[in-house]
Amino acid sequence: MVSRIPKPTINRLCKIYSLLEEFEDKAEITVSSKAIGERIGVGSHSVRKDISYLGEIGTVGSGYEVSKLKTHIGQRLGLNVERKACVVGLGKLGRAIMQHEKLFSGNFKIVAGFDANINLLETIVTDIPVYPTCDIIETVRRNAIEFAILTVPGHSAQEIVKRLIGGGIKGIINLSSATLSASMNESVFISNIDIFGEFRFLSALFTLEGENK
Amino acid sequence: MVSRIPKPTINRLCKIYSLLEEFEDKAEITVSSKAIGERIGVGSHSVRKDISYLGEIGTVGSGYEVSKLKTHIGQRLGLNVERKACVVGLGKLGRAIMQHEKLFSGNFKIVAGFDANINLLETIVTDIPVYPTCDIIETVRRNAIEFAILTVPGHSAQEIVKRLIGGGIKGIINLSSATLSASMNESVFISNIDIFGEFRFLSALFTLEGENK
Repeated sequence: MVSRIPKPTINRLCKIYSLLEEFEDKAEITVSSKAIGERIGVGSHSVRKDISYLGEIGTVGSGYEVSKLKTHIGQRLGLNVERKACVVGLGKLGRAIMQHEKLFSGNFKIVAGFDANINLLETIVTDIPVYPTCDIIETVRRNAIEFAILTVPGHSAQEIVKRLIGGGIKGIINLSSATLSASMNESVFISNIDIFGEFRFLSALFTLEGENK
Repeated sequence: MVSRIPKPTINRLCKIYSLLEEFEDKAEITVSSKAIGERIGVGSHSVRKDISYLGEIGTVGSGYEVSKLKTHIGQRLGLNVERKACVVGLGKLGRAIMQHEKLFSGNFKIVAGFDANINLLETIVTDIPVYPTCDIIETVRRNAIEFAILTVPGHSAQEIVKRLIGGGIKGIINLSSATLSASMNESVFISNIDIFGEFRFLSALFTLEGENK
């Protein structure tokens, strides 16, 4: 799992890519490393260094050409390659993500949804095929699904991950309350995002902050 | 903004709290630091150290009493205090979060939703009052709303944050694609969560990983 580009750089390049999409929507032609840095929260030097990992790219005056830089980053990081993904856990959050416009405009294509509740599956209105969670291994394998978004309750996350790995999944975005560790199985990338845990964290910071005043 | 408990510890204590809720639901009476550590991805020593920041708490055999530890953490971190929150940006994701069951069972109460699109506001079916974004300052102030969840497009995030701060907001969970920095205004806690950026990041990792094989 060694890559020549450091992970924090890859992460920032992805952010720069999102930003360039936005600039393109606003029909902006050029952008400076300073303007990029301000939006992603780092200095302009750091932006230039991150971009330099991709090899030579011409600058115009004090900046970059928006569309050229976007294509450059996109090709190098494979952000123009379509990736098949699935959503596991079709509660409100899972359904919102399954049907989120941004996933479709990006390079992710949700091709399946899963839920343990058969009754729920029967009532969901969506163009995306939905299956019971017992079909995960077979469905992921048959459709060559690479990525999964977990929106299941924390206590069932580990079992679901086992099945996803069994089907050959490559990456998991974990939105359940469970913290999943990639070291449990190194062939899969796991990204833990605990939205509701963040709420608690902010609330606790605020409480303790109040005490120390 | 100095707190006697380090931030990473506060973060882990919040995760432990979520976990204890889950154990309570499963009617488990005691839990060991090892079992907690396995679930939140740290060693048992680290779990015991985090819990020790809260002061003395009795252990039973090799573990803790689930309900006692939960009350202990909850009181110390103020997780039992109700916090008023709002959602800004009522697309599919914003609406899903506004109506998410977990927020209501936790200590956050969503008391308002905001969107720039007046037509959208008229069609939303919800028990929670919704307002146009131009009313943010007044509504946040009048209802003493402490926290906000941002699910707006990245380019409008900064302007919305200004208004939220104008209304006296204390903490922001930023789910937009923009990275917001707390240093722009130190009186507010900002937590950046870029779900769709995480997808890109995983996709890029996977691409670069493939190259290096």
